[in-house]
Amino acid sequence: MSEDIEEEVLRVLKPSLVQIKLLNNFYRLIKDRMVRCLTRRGLNAIVEPEGSFAKNTLLSDKWELDIFVLFKDVDESWILNNAEILLRECLEGLPISIRYAQHPYVTVHLMGMQADVVPAKFIKKPTGKLGVERTPFHTRYVRKKIRENPRIADEIRLLKSFLKGIGAYGAESSIGGFSGYLAELLVIYYGSFRRTLEEVSNWKPGIFIDIENIGNEDFLKRKYKDSVLIVVDPVDPERNVAASVTLEKFSTFILSARTYLNKPCKNYFHIYSHKREYSSRRGLFKDVLSRTIIVYLEGDYERLPRDSLLGKLKRLATYITRELRLYNFNVIRYKFYTDEVTKAAIVFELESLIKPKTELLKGPYSWDALERTLKFLRKRISEKGYVWVNDEGMLIGVRERRFTKATDLVAYVLASAPLLKFTKRIRVLAGEEARGWLSLILKNFILEVPAWMSCL
Amino acid sequence: MSEDIEEEVLRVLKPSLVQIKLLNNFYRLIKDRMVRCLTRRGLNAIVEPEGSFAKNTLLSDKWELDIFVLFKDVDESWILNNAEILLRECLEGLPISIRYAQHPYVTVHLMGMQADVVPAKFIKKPTGKLGVERTPFHTRYVRKKIRENPRIADEIRLLKSFLKGIGAYGAESSIGGFSGYLAELLVIYYGSFRRTLEEVSNWKPGIFIDIENIGNEDFLKRKYKDSVLIVVDPVDPERNVAASVTLEKFSTFILSARTYLNKPCKNYFHIYSHKREYSSRRGLFKDVLSRTIIVYLEGDYERLPRDSLLGKLKRLATYITRELRLYNFNVIRYKFYTDEVTKAAIVFELESLIKPKTELLKGPYSWDALERTLKFLRKRISEKGYVWVNDEGMLIGVRERRFTKATDLVAYVLASAPLLKFTKRIRVLAGEEARGWLSLILKNFILEVPAWMSCL
Repeated sequence: MSEDIEEEVLRVLKPSLVQIKLLNNFYRLIKDRMVRCLTRRGLNAIVEPEGSFAKNTLLSDKWELDIFVLFKDVDESWILNNAEILLRECLEGLPISIRYAQHPYVTVHLMGMQADVVPAKFIKKPTGKLGVERTPFHTRYVRKKIRENPRIADEIRLLKSFLKGIGAYGAESSIGGFSGYLAELLVIYYGSFRRTLEEVSNWKPGIFIDIENIGNEDFLKRKYKDSVLIVVDPVDPERNVAASVTLEKFSTFILSARTYLNKPCKNYFHIYSHKREYSSRRGLFKDVLSRTIIVYLEGDYERLPRDSLLGKLKRLATYITRELRLYNFNVIRYKFYTDEVTKAAIVFELESLIKPKTELLKGPYSWDALERTLKFLRKRISEKGYVWVNDEGMLIGVRERRFTKATDLVAYVLASAPLLKFTKRIRVLAGEEARGWLSLILKNFILEVPAWMSCL
Repeated sequence: MSEDIEEEVLRVLKPSLVQIKLLNNFYRLIKDRMVRCLTRRGLNAIVEPEGSFAKNTLLSDKWELDIFVLFKDVDESWILNNAEILLRECLEGLPISIRYAQHPYVTVHLMGMQADVVPAKFIKKPTGKLGVERTPFHTRYVRKKIRENPRIADEIRLLKSFLKGIGAYGAESSIGGFSGYLAELLVIYYGSFRRTLEEVSNWKPGIFIDIENIGNEDFLKRKYKDSVLIVVDPVDPERNVAASVTLEKFSTFILSARTYLNKPCKNYFHIYSHKREYSSRRGLFKDVLSRTIIVYLEGDYERLPRDSLLGKLKRLATYITRELRLYNFNVIRYKFYTDEVTKAAIVFELESLIKPKTELLKGPYSWDALERTLKFLRKRISEKGYVWVNDEGMLIGVRERRFTKATDLVAYVLASAPLLKFTKRIRVLAGEEARGWLSLILKNFILEVPAWMSCL
């Protein structure tokens, strides 16, 4: 049964011959342009495809490819100063836009397809502090493995789609999930999609994977002491490919691997995961709405790269969550949204937006150090509160709560927090006050449940 | 300074010569009557005073005395069958009432004084399963100690008054505090009121005191394994005088011993503890009222001895508290009240009477046993709730709360609980609905704070 499901999913996941052909033509077009342009200027550089397109692990809904221009005989600062103008000139006449990451890079848009043309320094060995220069080595490593065992290309497609479907795909700080390369390495290591899930369902924090047996486990565990998962990069023994994976996404992967193996279902895969079971949430809509709080930001967000903007939103959300919890407001979950132009919002679901006026504080036991018991008593009395000894001998303080409304607390927190870059205005609303764009994202926030939960 | 306070308190605590003389006359009157009556009937019995009157540890606001009639040559069942009629006849002409404890006993009321006349079997050695028969031995032991060191009588008065003032006096199950005899033993052991407080302020649960060095510590710690305090009875090495002391009262004693030594103050003593600081609570009145719940009972309570009625109320209060906590309603404290005729009430102060419709449940970690994670998921889904993985990898379930109102929950609990003996009607009210007698006790409940807290 599960094999049937996976075969069916794969039929939809695999790019068609037409798609491959069109992307190939697109690639040829840009490569030829670039090579001719570089030769004309006497620049020593290699133009080559990277990423899933190059590795043959592309998914059918991705009409994108990465092309790297690897410059020899120049240094990093030369690229920073000259690459943007050079790429603009070489690709003149094609519809392009410029984006800014480690270096500026160019995206070419053609007939619904996108090609990122990325300038980078050519290097011989991928060690030390590197960024995008490491990519060609990853491409080569995975291509070699797939050449040796072509069957795994499809297995990788299944795993990538699965990780997307459960919301654990992407190494960006705003996601904290599994990168495409990491998914590829897991399938290479465990042999298949199925075997990967079987192994993952037995994971606990502290997993160490070293495919090529080149890493120093002690060293890596010290270097990445906060990582729940260490996967040694086959092209760089001192690097953990899984450094960005958070405990949350790691756990989500374990959980859904378990539930999938227990009862396979198409909804785990990203091409089906948009078909969500709304019905059971509909009845909860009003209740969830009444427990929702929105931090709404307006600013010039087109000036920030998407990942950087999402990273900032994530940090702000984490900060607000910590403060809410400090004041005993239970945060169930949050999500952030942005139109990447002028609007951004963080939506929080709380257990309740209102807390009773009175707050209980657990103090020391009556036989704990004298200083502590007296301090606790005096503090409560000075706050006009009072103290009881409970049936376990513990002092229980009662005082008036400083914030009884979550919206007041968040407004207070934001007033003292530094404003997000490029942000002009920031507001706190209860979910019920949302209008326009905010009420659209609220609908998504509230009705959305992980699609795979409907399979249980 | 503290010595001044204690001297001043003692001046008020010590019975006047007039009081002693009147009580003595009262005692003589009853004793003479009883002795003549018993002799006339040819009964072999001793009539003697017991308790604080006999031991000279009486407090000035107590115009009471205990007189025991110790029958020789008869058995327990003879007392049960004949003592009541005998006492009635011997005391004929005096204003009396009958009460029922281990045996029926008689209370004589005269000019505002009360004398309990208690029949008991005369025994030679106070060991084994005994009740009231042990009292004469306690009286003799304490009298001997006071004869050896007369100064401690006043020290005992101070400690008894202190324990009353902090609400920790009385061995009844409805109080769970320190008996008068226990207070006497502590002063005998530690030497003075001051020394007792100094030692108590360093107490932790598990204290073992054996004044006469006659007990077997291992045996007693096994026999009284739930006791926080063991004080070996000097007249019965197998008995713990402190068996009734709860952790709550034990802790209250430690705490107030510490705060008193830190800053002595008259409000700790019972004759001053009614002068409460209401002012700071006045502002809280409405708030506390809105968080208060009353269980109101009506029945024939004059048919139950006071201690038995209070014991039943205490058990019911404990049961309701446990249920409230089970459903996550935080109980801050409770108290019970009765007019001992037809009305009784338990008043609870909660953190809040209302809970949000939604409830969070902590589940297993995603890497815990497969069965547990699947069970948790399926349960929440079947309840139409949902599940999230939090940032620590723990499954968090969300479901609708069964009871959002504390009053509904308590009504539900009472519906299935067995009705209290002699109770005809039971009702649950929110504090704000209280009228008449109930609003009077609510005022007491809300405005009352331990008087000594105003000294901190």
